[in-house]
Amino acid sequence: MKQVRVGLVGYNFMGRAHSNAYRQLPFYFPEAKAMPVMKVLCGRTKDRLAACAEQFGWEGIETSYKKLLERDDIDLIDITSPNNQHVEMVIAAAEAGKHVFCEKPLATSLADAKQALAAVKRAGCVHMICHNYRRAPAVSLAKRMIENGDLGEIYHWRAFYLQDWLMPPDVPMMWRVQKRIAGSGSLGDLMAHSIDTALWLLGDITQVCSTMKTFIKQRPQLSSFDTGLGGKADAGAKMGKVDVDDGVTMLAEFANGALGTFEATRYAAGRKNYNTFEVNGSKGSLVFNLERMNELEYYDCASPTDRVGFRVIQASHESHPFMAAGGDPSKGPRYWPVAHIIGYEHTFINTVADLMTAVATGKPVHPSFEDAVRTQAVLDACERAHKARAWVKVSK
Amino acid sequence: MKQVRVGLVGYNFMGRAHSNAYRQLPFYFPEAKAMPVMKVLCGRTKDRLAACAEQFGWEGIETSYKKLLERDDIDLIDITSPNNQHVEMVIAAAEAGKHVFCEKPLATSLADAKQALAAVKRAGCVHMICHNYRRAPAVSLAKRMIENGDLGEIYHWRAFYLQDWLMPPDVPMMWRVQKRIAGSGSLGDLMAHSIDTALWLLGDITQVCSTMKTFIKQRPQLSSFDTGLGGKADAGAKMGKVDVDDGVTMLAEFANGALGTFEATRYAAGRKNYNTFEVNGSKGSLVFNLERMNELEYYDCASPTDRVGFRVIQASHESHPFMAAGGDPSKGPRYWPVAHIIGYEHTFINTVADLMTAVATGKPVHPSFEDAVRTQAVLDACERAHKARAWVKVSK
Amino acid sequence: MKQVRVGLVGYNFMGRAHSNAYRQLPFYFPEAKAMPVMKVLCGRTKDRLAACAEQFGWEGIETSYKKLLERDDIDLIDITSPNNQHVEMVIAAAEAGKHVFCEKPLATSLADAKQALAAVKRAGCVHMICHNYRRAPAVSLAKRMIENGDLGEIYHWRAFYLQDWLMPPDVPMMWRVQKRIAGSGSLGDLMAHSIDTALWLLGDITQVCSTMKTFIKQRPQLSSFDTGLGGKADAGAKMGKVDVDDGVTMLAEFANGALGTFEATRYAAGRKNYNTFEVNGSKGSLVFNLERMNELEYYDCASPTDRVGFRVIQASHESHPFMAAGGDPSKGPRYWPVAHIIGYEHTFINTVADLMTAVATGKPVHPSFEDAVRTQAVLDACERAHKARAWVKVSK
Amino acid sequence: MKQVRVGLVGYNFMGRAHSNAYRQLPFYFPEAKAMPVMKVLCGRTKDRLAACAEQFGWEGIETSYKKLLERDDIDLIDITSPNNQHVEMVIAAAEAGKHVFCEKPLATSLADAKQALAAVKRAGCVHMICHNYRRAPAVSLAKRMIENGDLGEIYHWRAFYLQDWLMPPDVPMMWRVQKRIAGSGSLGDLMAHSIDTALWLLGDITQVCSTMKTFIKQRPQLSSFDTGLGGKADAGAKMGKVDVDDGVTMLAEFANGALGTFEATRYAAGRKNYNTFEVNGSKGSLVFNLERMNELEYYDCASPTDRVGFRVIQASHESHPFMAAGGDPSKGPRYWPVAHIIGYEHTFINTVADLMTAVATGKPVHPSFEDAVRTQAVLDACERAHKARAWVKVSK
Repeated sequence: MKQVRVGLVGYNFMGRAHSNAYRQLPFYFPEAKAMPVMKVLCGRTKDRLAACAEQFGWEGIETSYKKLLERDDIDLIDITSPNNQHVEMVIAAAEAGKHVFCEKPLATSLADAKQALAAVKRAGCVHMICHNYRRAPAVSLAKRMIENGDLGEIYHWRAFYLQDWLMPPDVPMMWRVQKRIAGSGSLGDLMAHSIDTALWLLGDITQVCSTMKTFIKQRPQLSSFDTGLGGKADAGAKMGKVDVDDGVTMLAEFANGALGTFEATRYAAGRKNYNTFEVNGSKGSLVFNLERMNELEYYDCASPTDRVGFRVIQASHESHPFMAAGGDPSKGPRYWPVAHIIGYEHTFINTVADLMTAVATGKPVHPSFEDAVRTQAVLDACERAHKARAWVKVSK
Repeated sequence: MKQVRVGLVGYNFMGRAHSNAYRQLPFYFPEAKAMPVMKVLCGRTKDRLAACAEQFGWEGIETSYKKLLERDDIDLIDITSPNNQHVEMVIAAAEAGKHVFCEKPLATSLADAKQALAAVKRAGCVHMICHNYRRAPAVSLAKRMIENGDLGEIYHWRAFYLQDWLMPPDVPMMWRVQKRIAGSGSLGDLMAHSIDTALWLLGDITQVCSTMKTFIKQRPQLSSFDTGLGGKADAGAKMGKVDVDDGVTMLAEFANGALGTFEATRYAAGRKNYNTFEVNGSKGSLVFNLERMNELEYYDCASPTDRVGFRVIQASHESHPFMAAGGDPSKGPRYWPVAHIIGYEHTFINTVADLMTAVATGKPVHPSFEDAVRTQAVLDACERAHKARAWVKVSK
Repeated sequence: MKQVRVGLVGYNFMGRAHSNAYRQLPFYFPEAKAMPVMKVLCGRTKDRLAACAEQFGWEGIETSYKKLLERDDIDLIDITSPNNQHVEMVIAAAEAGKHVFCEKPLATSLADAKQALAAVKRAGCVHMICHNYRRAPAVSLAKRMIENGDLGEIYHWRAFYLQDWLMPPDVPMMWRVQKRIAGSGSLGDLMAHSIDTALWLLGDITQVCSTMKTFIKQRPQLSSFDTGLGGKADAGAKMGKVDVDDGVTMLAEFANGALGTFEATRYAAGRKNYNTFEVNGSKGSLVFNLERMNELEYYDCASPTDRVGFRVIQASHESHPFMAAGGDPSKGPRYWPVAHIIGYEHTFINTVADLMTAVATGKPVHPSFEDAVRTQAVLDACERAHKARAWVKVSK
Repeated sequence: MKQVRVGLVGYNFMGRAHSNAYRQLPFYFPEAKAMPVMKVLCGRTKDRLAACAEQFGWEGIETSYKKLLERDDIDLIDITSPNNQHVEMVIAAAEAGKHVFCEKPLATSLADAKQALAAVKRAGCVHMICHNYRRAPAVSLAKRMIENGDLGEIYHWRAFYLQDWLMPPDVPMMWRVQKRIAGSGSLGDLMAHSIDTALWLLGDITQVCSTMKTFIKQRPQLSSFDTGLGGKADAGAKMGKVDVDDGVTMLAEFANGALGTFEATRYAAGRKNYNTFEVNGSKGSLVFNLERMNELEYYDCASPTDRVGFRVIQASHESHPFMAAGGDPSKGPRYWPVAHIIGYEHTFINTVADLMTAVATGKPVHPSFEDAVRTQAVLDACERAHKARAWVKVSK
């Protein structure tokens, strides 16, 4: 069994989710072609870093990512640091001869994303962007069905990623609302997920128009450390300027002729993690909602007229992607029997499983940085369209 | 009790729905300030007209709408003829001194709509456009809650009206797919409903961008009479050109600062009459779906953190709009006890009830032709935006 | 066209629902073999009776049902008086040579029900019991599918009819909580519906066990007239003893080998008119919920393993029972296009349509009084089982 | 940090789920008062045992549970062997001075269960039965709300645990359909879960009546090893006799006056893991469905009349049981942010967290073996009632 020695940068929300994936891979994917060795957790605040490393199961720590890259006992660098650090780290990692796995977004601009891609191509390393929702089994099932032609010609795509956590005016100036660090707001954080899924399921987007809006323009400065999930500002804290979009809406045209509608916001009261899409084709439709991620709704036009309807597929059966032990439905379930549901974290485990295969075999894995650049090009077009107040073409 | 003598033009889908409303008003609204007398049904094909008049309960018939207008025993003209005839009839009716009730759309162009409005204003008659969905009790409840401030500042509106009946390529060249008669396709037929609701609930739309698309560009010509619901083309029928939009997507900005997303299509497999909207505000959210029109989903941000969630209001209780006998909750239900649901047709009954009040009192009723012009202005902007490939302002 | 002259006894909740059905039959069923003439409304309180007759559309009134029966211009007697008057009226009507339509329950005891049945059999008249929910199109669709073998061998039936209107302690001593008038509480009012549906869909029930319970044993006496929907008691009203069941639970065994679970209550907070059933068979399952009565959920075991699931059939298409104009799917919808939903009242219209056919043709119609006796036998067994604290056989 | 050295018996479905819980405890509950050390995995088939031990993360193996008990480096014995071996192992473990955690059911008869309880009481060890669904956060939230009085007086309980995996006639004679090993069928496997939850949420059940049924009475013998999840029989395999219940229905009376309805089956087509309950009280209702285990539906009678309804609580917020890091809502989420859902396996992690506290502190933990005996007493009553065809009292 090949071993892949991992160095992970970042220990907050995403660092934790990635750690869990490495930790659980041997348990759920004993047939994997390579297994991660949780070698080094890297971060800046030593005490907290050490505590996290122990909690998550990492062998050691580094407080400098440059030192991490110098180590020759690391095969793969996994980057979950704030968005604005991704590109620099990706390039350095590639140049250091490491494989690279990067939490989305790859960059905070299209130009930067292309640089990152160029670097990994030069290096010839394995590169993967973490768009984990592709590997929710229900989403992978949607992919399989669309590729199989079950939906026929695609007419419509509509996707929403709605949350509401930013609505309270006392949520502070965390990094996610600062353009310098995050790149954008709902656009890059949420709609990027929908775009990645759309590109995967339907293919290229050619043109977009959009609008972006900041609803609450000032928020209290954080005095304490930003954990990535926020924290509280002190009473009487100074106010900072929110310079990212709170909400964004976008129309799109796909190369295949379909019309697309997208929306992402952090201001949809009651929508907690409502990442949903619907695809309508000439032969049927599919609906997905991340809050019920074990289900996929499917409408099959070929059903008899008097008994046609949207059905709820419990996409947790061994016949569904990622759900069979060893990938073989006859061996029973990988996780648990059907409808003994899995959760958010399992999308990362499935992702890392395929990443390991890529490292073991050297074959490309998707979403690659090329895919990341395609997504970034749509994000870029969305911002340009917003400024132009007009439809713009997506860069190739 | 005042009596309002009605002449109805058209006996197809909408003519039937309006007839039922007049017929049922005394049964459900015995307290109405005026009662309709079903005087004359007007149409062109005499045999079918006579049969319909008997079936629906009209006293007599006329095969010429001009003759209908000459009669002095008619107080109110109700127009449900094909879209391109509305304006001419409205103007003639107003000039003949009749009150006017017109099925949506008022016109097939903004200019025409304004002419129709000018005519009724000159005449000083009661004028009402039939956007019946406003008076689904759940939608009226949404209006009451928003007006009451229950949603706070509004951030987002998203509305879809999705159907799928036009998908089969053998659906023929009925009038609904001919621009000359229908004015537009999904835009005027479906999205117009969403726009009317949006304007009512949130207020003016200032700018839009959009795209419109025809997916199947040729359809077989109908040899037989077009009943409004279609019919079949003969095998080997000649093909005609579809020149209206099959699907339309639109972004909007509201005067109140909210972002809007709209979509209408006849190509969403499995969506039969999926007219749905969601409003997100600083204090809560509302969701409506016409296919479950007795329900309104409500999220109240003020609920305790550990028990907050979208609730399904059974909007068929006597405390809800239109649902109490005589409008008085203490008198019990107007229709049936709570959750003994009402249907599509009752939205027309509720509409006609308010129309009768307007005729009896002479006070304006909404949606008036002024409201119709506002909706038409958005439709107009949508078409302009589509051509301009850019955001355009909505005309005032 | 044959005309059936109707005399209706009762003008409260059910009298109103039946009146609407006669009133609307010509509008929706122009092809009916016979048409009702709304001849006489019969009740005891003259002023209110006259007002209702006018509102509902009856030609005349009678304040004595005996006088009504003496009239020779009445063909059909429709009985919606309080439960304890049904049998006496049925027998008298049959003996007077009238056809008989009776609101459920036929009687307040099995013995009485049998007497009523014997009377109509002696008279040779048409007899029908009003279990209107059979003719919700979705329920009739369930019948068609089960008869067609689509569910295979039936294993399980579970049915609930849950309401909550009786929960407030200040709801007064209306007739529905008095055994002398109502016969029973939730059992005869609610579970009777579930039993009728079960017998229709699955066939005979052979044995039952049960328990019945009164949660609130005293309620304030009504000083004013009981409208059937309740009303308020005066402050300080004397308390009366509730002697019917508030809630009842029952297990059943069907002749076909299936296991049945039933529950009915007026104490299920939040359940307004939650009349629901689920049938599980070897080939599939069906789920119905009256609050969403235009939908039928269907699970088809024959679907491919990776895309099997409960689908929501919009049972409002012309291919569904009662939904096509003239009963012919090629003629389009009877009511409105698919998913332009119908409501509670339409189940009565569909019922009366078949009643008219029976009167016109003299052929039996279901549910007949024989069916009513079968339902009453199960109610009777339920009460005996409750007292015996054991399984009991259902009388034949 | 106290360490608890665990020996786990069994490596199939439940052995795997328990292993994962120990494995993940440090990751999710770093604040735990004691941490498990995954010392020994015990089973009979050495090769497979060794493979599982490596995959799951156990330090070593034993092929004899007696040898396991003799080891002095084991503090806690966890038993997930087939049902009929539980009691013997529990007694031996207690006598060997170990703490005992046992997968449900504790025994295959009430008498045996009481012996097991007596043994742990004699030994004074920590004892816990694994009814993991109690610790689905939504179920624990239900408990908190009921204890808090939010539902008022409880009137009704209805619970179903429906599956369909046993329907195909070629599913072989696995141990779950053999009374000798499993004790019972749906009753002990599925309804036991519902009973445990009911006893926890509502308190004692005093009397029950029931029926139990075997729908398919013969199944092919398994030639190969029974993995616990089944496997296939050879073509032409001899047939064996199924002597457990495929489906069971039960009525219950609770000591608090509530009426209960229970049903469990493996023959409900389309229901995969449909473990659901509804509680109706004088102040509100709750509904839970394991297939959407992150949600809890709640109806609050105190909501204003015109906006009351069942709400869907996303029970994955840090304000919900088990969901806050370190148990402290101000520290953010334990697992992931709200509506980034957790799955089946996390109910075991939560369970083991409380087990560790019990071992660390010596304080009792629930569900204890006393709770297990209470559940077993209801199962026993259910079987007696089935035979007696009458209501029977639950033993104390």
